[in-house]
Amino acid sequence: MSYPAGTTGVVVQNIERADQSIIDRLAACGVATVHEAQGRKGLLADYMRPVYPGAQVAASAVTVLAPPCDNWMLHVAIEQLQPGDILVLGTTTPSRAGYFGDLLATSAKARGCKGLIIDAGVRDVHDLKEMDFPVWSKAVCAQGTIKETLGSVNVPVVCADQLVNPGDIIVADDDGVCVVPRVEAAEVLKKAQAREANEARKRARFEAGDLGLDIYDMRERLAEKGLKYV
Amino acid sequence: MSYPAGTTGVVVQNIERADQSIIDRLAACGVATVHEAQGRKGLLADYMRPVYPGAQVAASAVTVLAPPCDNWMLHVAIEQLQPGDILVLGTTTPSRAGYFGDLLATSAKARGCKGLIIDAGVRDVHDLKEMDFPVWSKAVCAQGTIKETLGSVNVPVVCADQLVNPGDIIVADDDGVCVVPRVEAAEVLKKAQAREANEARKRARFEAGDLGLDIYDMRERLAEKGLKYV
Amino acid sequence: MSYPAGTTGVVVQNIERADQSIIDRLAACGVATVHEAQGRKGLLADYMRPVYPGAQVAASAVTVLAPPCDNWMLHVAIEQLQPGDILVLGTTTPSRAGYFGDLLATSAKARGCKGLIIDAGVRDVHDLKEMDFPVWSKAVCAQGTIKETLGSVNVPVVCADQLVNPGDIIVADDDGVCVVPRVEAAEVLKKAQAREANEARKRARFEAGDLGLDIYDMRERLAEKGLKYV
Amino acid sequence: MSYPAGTTGVVVQNIERADQSIIDRLAACGVATVHEAQGRKGLLADYMRPVYPGAQVAASAVTVLAPPCDNWMLHVAIEQLQPGDILVLGTTTPSRAGYFGDLLATSAKARGCKGLIIDAGVRDVHDLKEMDFPVWSKAVCAQGTIKETLGSVNVPVVCADQLVNPGDIIVADDDGVCVVPRVEAAEVLKKAQAREANEARKRARFEAGDLGLDIYDMRERLAEKGLKYV
Amino acid sequence: MSYPAGTTGVVVQNIERADQSIIDRLAACGVATVHEAQGRKGLLADYMRPVYPGAQVAASAVTVLAPPCDNWMLHVAIEQLQPGDILVLGTTTPSRAGYFGDLLATSAKARGCKGLIIDAGVRDVHDLKEMDFPVWSKAVCAQGTIKETLGSVNVPVVCADQLVNPGDIIVADDDGVCVVPRVEAAEVLKKAQAREANEARKRARFEAGDLGLDIYDMRERLAEKGLKYV
Amino acid sequence: MSYPAGTTGVVVQNIERADQSIIDRLAACGVATVHEAQGRKGLLADYMRPVYPGAQVAASAVTVLAPPCDNWMLHVAIEQLQPGDILVLGTTTPSRAGYFGDLLATSAKARGCKGLIIDAGVRDVHDLKEMDFPVWSKAVCAQGTIKETLGSVNVPVVCADQLVNPGDIIVADDDGVCVVPRVEAAEVLKKAQAREANEARKRARFEAGDLGLDIYDMRERLAEKGLKYV
Repeated sequence: MSYPAGTTGVVVQNIERADQSIIDRLAACGVATVHEAQGRKGLLADYMRPVYPGAQVAASAVTVLAPPCDNWMLHVAIEQLQPGDILVLGTTTPSRAGYFGDLLATSAKARGCKGLIIDAGVRDVHDLKEMDFPVWSKAVCAQGTIKETLGSVNVPVVCADQLVNPGDIIVADDDGVCVVPRVEAAEVLKKAQAREANEARKRARFEAGDLGLDIYDMRERLAEKGLKYV
Repeated sequence: MSYPAGTTGVVVQNIERADQSIIDRLAACGVATVHEAQGRKGLLADYMRPVYPGAQVAASAVTVLAPPCDNWMLHVAIEQLQPGDILVLGTTTPSRAGYFGDLLATSAKARGCKGLIIDAGVRDVHDLKEMDFPVWSKAVCAQGTIKETLGSVNVPVVCADQLVNPGDIIVADDDGVCVVPRVEAAEVLKKAQAREANEARKRARFEAGDLGLDIYDMRERLAEKGLKYV
Repeated sequence: MSYPAGTTGVVVQNIERADQSIIDRLAACGVATVHEAQGRKGLLADYMRPVYPGAQVAASAVTVLAPPCDNWMLHVAIEQLQPGDILVLGTTTPSRAGYFGDLLATSAKARGCKGLIIDAGVRDVHDLKEMDFPVWSKAVCAQGTIKETLGSVNVPVVCADQLVNPGDIIVADDDGVCVVPRVEAAEVLKKAQAREANEARKRARFEAGDLGLDIYDMRERLAEKGLKYV
Repeated sequence: MSYPAGTTGVVVQNIERADQSIIDRLAACGVATVHEAQGRKGLLADYMRPVYPGAQVAASAVTVLAPPCDNWMLHVAIEQLQPGDILVLGTTTPSRAGYFGDLLATSAKARGCKGLIIDAGVRDVHDLKEMDFPVWSKAVCAQGTIKETLGSVNVPVVCADQLVNPGDIIVADDDGVCVVPRVEAAEVLKKAQAREANEARKRARFEAGDLGLDIYDMRERLAEKGLKYV
Repeated sequence: MSYPAGTTGVVVQNIERADQSIIDRLAACGVATVHEAQGRKGLLADYMRPVYPGAQVAASAVTVLAPPCDNWMLHVAIEQLQPGDILVLGTTTPSRAGYFGDLLATSAKARGCKGLIIDAGVRDVHDLKEMDFPVWSKAVCAQGTIKETLGSVNVPVVCADQLVNPGDIIVADDDGVCVVPRVEAAEVLKKAQAREANEARKRARFEAGDLGLDIYDMRERLAEKGLKYV
Repeated sequence: MSYPAGTTGVVVQNIERADQSIIDRLAACGVATVHEAQGRKGLLADYMRPVYPGAQVAASAVTVLAPPCDNWMLHVAIEQLQPGDILVLGTTTPSRAGYFGDLLATSAKARGCKGLIIDAGVRDVHDLKEMDFPVWSKAVCAQGTIKETLGSVNVPVVCADQLVNPGDIIVADDDGVCVVPRVEAAEVLKKAQAREANEARKRARFEAGDLGLDIYDMRERLAEKGLKYV
């Protein structure tokens, strides 16, 4: 059963996930390639930054809808995690508070969680790095949160300008975060791998000193558009 | 004698400081814990970021009130530093100019200063990292400053949304910056350490796979609020 | 021949460059010193940040004027690069899209290019770091671009609040980016080196514990302005 | 038939709309009341501002998904408008360009359109005011757009942090913009009108000098929480 | 008795206020003049904007410290209002939620309150204008708030970068908001009025076509600094 | 004689201006039309907003380069004004201070000045509206400035992302600000007027209910790109 985006007071316990082998291969492709491969859709806003550099992951989204300055639903969501999942948190109104720190990371990691995507703030970022638990967030902020108001788990959420459905695949690295609809994962992977093969060939030519103008046959079209060399 | 926040043209030479052993133990607790321990007060705005990651300090505030794009008062303030102090600079009007670089850092360090909290910009950040002189700032900016207008040293200043009194304790790490009133330091330390002990116990349970829902007995209250599992 | 800033549809093929030995010595001075040495001019807006820390370069600007979300002109510009050049891209309207990634970096590097200054976004930042190809940008963003509309190469461009002429010298490090007019390069270098010698003397005094108040003879002027010690 | 959010290349021609009398009564309630009545959901980000003050509307959403700096889909969308509709535009990547001006407003108005909600820029704002065609936007910007790339009409779009489905009801006034799911419109209206009646009674008491502390019986709970009067 | 800035859980019932005739005359001077007259201190950050243009007020501050997204303390504060007061709200952590609307304005107005200065959001702005109840805020936002957590009334608060003590005088107009310490009010008024008299003389000379270069005798000093006319 | 952008310490007294009848006719066209007519160049960043709505002007730029928080050069610039000029101020480093208020406006108006474009702050905005002296600025801010450091008058300046040369034509209205190079003014006017005539014809068709899809013959190209109607 599916609920509309923004529904509060609901925990959806059974969600469908994509095939793990597809997810792993999407991780290897990285955000920029996956984003191109699915037709330049699904990129979260670029204010979402890794709290430390170097991580590259793909995982199934367990979504969390949270009230402002209230992280209660994260505790609820962690029970729903399966190994290979990633938490994706959107808020009902913008907040930069620190919803998540080392204790929740310990709990999530104990259940096999691969990271957190949060359109809000996190804290204990030094510990997160030590634990190798990657987070992409809007802010780093030590401000704590309360536990007063219900949100939801595994309803569709808007996170950093994108709609994320539970079970969608999240790809994240130093370039940012991209969401791939679960049902399109196989098709996107195929295109991403084709793109990678093509890029490898191109890279070799670029390394050899060939120009994009020639590799992509751009000179004639530039001239038609009226480009003048002086 | 105390002066109102914003007073210009004054250098207060004798300020009270907290007990150094308390300060050192607050450093070990870190920003997030200290902030919680004092009732979620005193956190500077989250735009204050370390210019390089990894430092964790606590120190007594020597406060500086500075005009826009004018760093004259930093020279005056350095004479007032004692070993174990930290400079805390607020401006009379917002500025992102580079008030502080490697020469001032050399001078401050020679007097035992433990770092700088500045609601403006700094430069020579590569040198600051080499020198192991930590800075939390609003901006990195090579734009220099002038020396034309008086501010003050050791009057109360507003720095990144918080009032800092001279002699207050500053705690800073990768999560940001928090100010603890001098007279509350011992009490805050006690609560912070209790919190740490408690968190250590919780962490062990989380690592063992226990859920926050159970550790914090949340299930009943969630049900009362109407949370539905579907 | 020179074209006005903002001209589109033109590639200027022959530009004058400064003497390479001057450029190399400016690199060694760094941004803060060069900026001071040329009278506090030429600093790009401080939102321009290195995509990874630690690089310090100086190079001759090959300028690119690009439409929003359109990186076609970068391909055209790469053909105009000579060893020791740096690409400087301004847009005709603000954009945060990812104009540049590892393939273009491979191509630019094959021609001896020393980096990129871009008032927009880049992607593949992990690869750029691996390749040791430094970039200073407004954003990191995986969003791709199109190739539909002409801009120009080697016309004057506004980049992050500063006018950059082709052949001007760009100095960039962890403090940001500064532009030095080509014809002033020798004079600026002379002043920057004098400044460095002077700073070395000052640094020794600061390390020895002397105060800026005495090194710069500030006490009398502070008293004249009315500074009170209490 | 329904398409996932972000689908490009599709125009959905037949969408369901809510009952016009419900929509009109929601308009009379205004944004703040409607937002409260539906449980504090559905508010667009507060950067969405009216280009001129004073308008208050409710209408059925005809949604537009548009590429950056490309307004082609607005022409396509206008053909799908029915009297009483409002255009709601989200972009595939953030843009502040001016997608909409007096000509498109003339065309939309000729088809009975009641306004525009756009997570991007508009221009000709003086004319829009003269025409009494209300717009809520992220920016006012004269920068024109191109017509090169397909988006979609009447697929779900994310607009200023909220998901808007075609046929949802948009309520907008000087306080901002709120979206009401079509199927919940009648229920939300009932609650909004109850709320208004209740507020009218409260307003009378406030005007008479009664305090919220008494009207809402807050004194005891404040005392329990520990509030001290000194 | 006075409490430190940031204290929560306290309502100070008796505060001292400045002489009403001084306050009224400060209102007539306006923000820019008062700010200059008190030595360029006390200006709130320029993101504080009037929700409608044209109001010009001065009043005694009744301060409110509020948790994020929680407006409970405003109800408490209104009981403490006397005719001629203005509410000044700072938050314990940044928030843009709508803390205040037409019902609270009705209540505050019934007690003689002259307006609101709020470092957060407000709603019902069309009604506020109709009621002639001026507000200067950081945001307009229909998002409602809860009533769960204590703050304080009439403790010192940081509001938009400035410390405001209860009983300080707030001056606000279309240029922004300025705070004058209660004990300095008479002195600031004297200087502000002298400044106005002086400006009236200057204005007459400017209207007659005299230049600032001559009125302020700037030519010689400009020449000394090296200004060249070419 | 011309000086490079950013030169300080110089006042250029004789600048060339465009023909006044051309300027007046550009004013009538407005910003959006002029910007399109010159090939979508020259638009200042959209953070430049009118301090009151409704003004529409075109005028010759007298440029001012000013240090941060220092308005000395405005006094120098006013002497250089001729009737029909407009002041255009860029800063050497970003500033939001209030450089300009009612006294300077009185002086500028006495010399026939038509307004101010300022990449910084202004104050006395209520008076400016009363005087009918239009200003487009980055900020409204009562913070005053000093008079300590030289800038320049009538050298090229970067103002809100655009290079403005002295004597260029500025067009400004509620949509923002656009700069037209002096030597291109006649050509731009011709294109702008052609555009207006064309738009008048289009507007009539739109009012009659014709669609852009037909007026601009878009249907075939949309189909070729693959747009599906469902």
